[in-house]
Amino acid sequence: MAWSNAKNSALKERALKVIPRGMYGHEATTLLPDEYPQFFQRAKGSRLWDVDGNEYVDMMCAYGPNLLGYGYEPVEAAAAAQQVLGDTMTGPSEGMVTLAETLVGMISHADWAMFCKNGTDATTMAIVAARAHTGRRKILYATGTYHGAAPWCTPRPAGTLPEDRAHIVYYQYNDLDSLEAAFKACGGDVAGVLATPFVHEVFRDQTLAEQAFARGARELCDKYGALLILDEVRAGFRLARDCSWAQYGVAPDLSAWGKCLANGYPISALLGSEAARRGAEEMFVTGSFWFSATPMAAAIETLRQIRDTDYLERTIASGRRLREGLQQQAASHGFTLRQTGPAQMPQILFEDDPDFRIGYAWAAEALKGGAYLHPYHNMFVSGAHTLDDMGRILEATDQAFEAVKKRRDTLQPHPILTMILNEH
Amino acid sequence: MAWSNAKNSALKERALKVIPRGMYGHEATTLLPDEYPQFFQRAKGSRLWDVDGNEYVDMMCAYGPNLLGYGYEPVEAAAAAQQVLGDTMTGPSEGMVTLAETLVGMISHADWAMFCKNGTDATTMAIVAARAHTGRRKILYATGTYHGAAPWCTPRPAGTLPEDRAHIVYYQYNDLDSLEAAFKACGGDVAGVLATPFVHEVFRDQTLAEQAFARGARELCDKYGALLILDEVRAGFRLARDCSWAQYGVAPDLSAWGKCLANGYPISALLGSEAARRGAEEMFVTGSFWFSATPMAAAIETLRQIRDTDYLERTIASGRRLREGLQQQAASHGFTLRQTGPAQMPQILFEDDPDFRIGYAWAAEALKGGAYLHPYHNMFVSGAHTLDDMGRILEATDQAFEAVKKRRDTLQPHPILTMILNEH
Repeated sequence: MAWSNAKNSALKERALKVIPRGMYGHEATTLLPDEYPQFFQRAKGSRLWDVDGNEYVDMMCAYGPNLLGYGYEPVEAAAAAQQVLGDTMTGPSEGMVTLAETLVGMISHADWAMFCKNGTDATTMAIVAARAHTGRRKILYATGTYHGAAPWCTPRPAGTLPEDRAHIVYYQYNDLDSLEAAFKACGGDVAGVLATPFVHEVFRDQTLAEQAFARGARELCDKYGALLILDEVRAGFRLARDCSWAQYGVAPDLSAWGKCLANGYPISALLGSEAARRGAEEMFVTGSFWFSATPMAAAIETLRQIRDTDYLERTIASGRRLREGLQQQAASHGFTLRQTGPAQMPQILFEDDPDFRIGYAWAAEALKGGAYLHPYHNMFVSGAHTLDDMGRILEATDQAFEAVKKRRDTLQPHPILTMILNEH
Repeated sequence: MAWSNAKNSALKERALKVIPRGMYGHEATTLLPDEYPQFFQRAKGSRLWDVDGNEYVDMMCAYGPNLLGYGYEPVEAAAAAQQVLGDTMTGPSEGMVTLAETLVGMISHADWAMFCKNGTDATTMAIVAARAHTGRRKILYATGTYHGAAPWCTPRPAGTLPEDRAHIVYYQYNDLDSLEAAFKACGGDVAGVLATPFVHEVFRDQTLAEQAFARGARELCDKYGALLILDEVRAGFRLARDCSWAQYGVAPDLSAWGKCLANGYPISALLGSEAARRGAEEMFVTGSFWFSATPMAAAIETLRQIRDTDYLERTIASGRRLREGLQQQAASHGFTLRQTGPAQMPQILFEDDPDFRIGYAWAAEALKGGAYLHPYHNMFVSGAHTLDDMGRILEATDQAFEAVKKRRDTLQPHPILTMILNEH
């Protein structure tokens, strides 16, 4: 069947009438090549079908939630069994306690857990808990990193006020001097240091945390009596079966989790150490669906799969297969790729492509060949992505390299992206 | 089977170790009588079973989400059909557009919809959109009303900063003079006025909005160029099949919805008029699960049931049956009740009970008789609550009145509640 997007186009027209801009947030395709579908029909394993019926090997995994494969049977079965009993009730199920116990058993720094819905809920609760715990105000925040979309952290400031981030103080990731300078500038008023496990930002190469930075951040927090907060919402369980900085021997006081915690069912969590419990006890936070039983049942089963299967090793192997294959293809077609970050959370950018016109054209060609790649956001490999899937992606990308090479001189940059890049 | 709570007690012990305070948020039983179960096994229709297997007619309806009955088959079927296709994917399904169209068709003031997860997401988006729209800072907020648990509105300030509510200015609900005074005090800097459809607060009688207040609030917003924001999260679709103030001929610019929108599936929404679209277009808000397809499929079916069935008339009839029965029982046992608010969202407090000891003892007795009532929070009647269910509650309350009358002189107030009341 030839690739087409007629249904998607019609749906976008309808959406423009009843949804601001037709779509919003991180899954809006506004900044993607025009070919990218906005609306999807179904998903299974590593595959995704758009509303026109086009099938893709999906390298976005719902921007993270898909860890084990879409519709992964053991998780679906656990969720369905709970759904029949009850989901959103007048209080939680026993599963809430079991889930907290399971996380405390798996995440070495954690002695307790609180559940919520959005990643932003978890990061916001982390800063509130740190402020309640320390009686201080300042949160040290790595410039240009994403910690959610609440007024204190959203990357687009429309509708927010200076007061929303009056006590957010910025440092440079992987730069201990800038972190210590921020501590000193705050004169004893630092409640917490917020960091992602590595830098995984849009339109940029990814950068792993240096061990010295992770350890130094821990030491500075101890020295100044502040809490270390790790934002695992995007990277959690993609690098390790424990907190991502456990490999460095660094234990945060608080960690925020979300996305893949229940393989697509909606739940996020704040975890903390015994020492950080008091602040968490004092704050009042809640939500209508935070105690719903079905996502908790799904999370318990997802954690069992994380613990008992080789999902992690398989995602790494598949990620490496793709990375190596792309490296060879790029070289043979005369392109240079910057493939950064963990192979199972790849960011793929083109060298000498400042306005992203090459990367965009390449991704659009690959899309039409059945590979859903992302030209500016990190991607995700799930446990359902086989080496064969990666081979299928590589067939699409090989043709994409070839096509882009032929029309390289006629490529144009994306108009809205150009406007935004010019603003910065 | 005799009422017991051994399993619940054991579970609370386990929870204390791995969850701060053992539980948090609006479903924590900390302030309820000791007998109240914290953990539940299942729910169906109007009934709820705790982990010890005790069965209750549940008057809390999950604190709102249960509108049509727990496990309501048409909604469960719609959700299950979507779940098989895909829930959290790399973008939304066609259902997102259909759901927005459906809401725009049903809610007279709405021209567009944005979906999110928590009620707090919707109210926070409302104030951000109002600020983006007007370029102003102040939000007028009725003293003592609940609009969520983010730092700008949470009722318990631990961990929040003065800056979080630097531009929240308070007025008295149903008091137009105080609202106009707040406008004047802000000197042209008011972005929006936030109001619930009526006052539905804990430990207080409920108060309906006066028509003159609703109309006057609309006129003041128009006079000063501010947006009127109605917070329908708790009351939406409980009073009307349209915005709650439509009965007064008042259309807000923005309205926040949640809880029962998908009969228990997690979704909330911000709706707005054409005039208020621009602010919504400018803000950046998102969440990992905001575009998930299953809750949208559940919401579409819930809205169909709202439109096509007499669920609303039935909840009103059942609520009135309970209200009248309780009135008679109270009188015959020598008590005076204050039953306030809509019959289908009842608040039941005892006259001459300043520390709530009578109400607490009564609710605890009714609980053991199989009626899950709430001694300080408004309750909810669902479409599954039959007149027979209300008769069953009345059997339990009749015994409860009798038991409390006998030991009235020995009742003690709740210790934690007493501590909190003394703080205020």
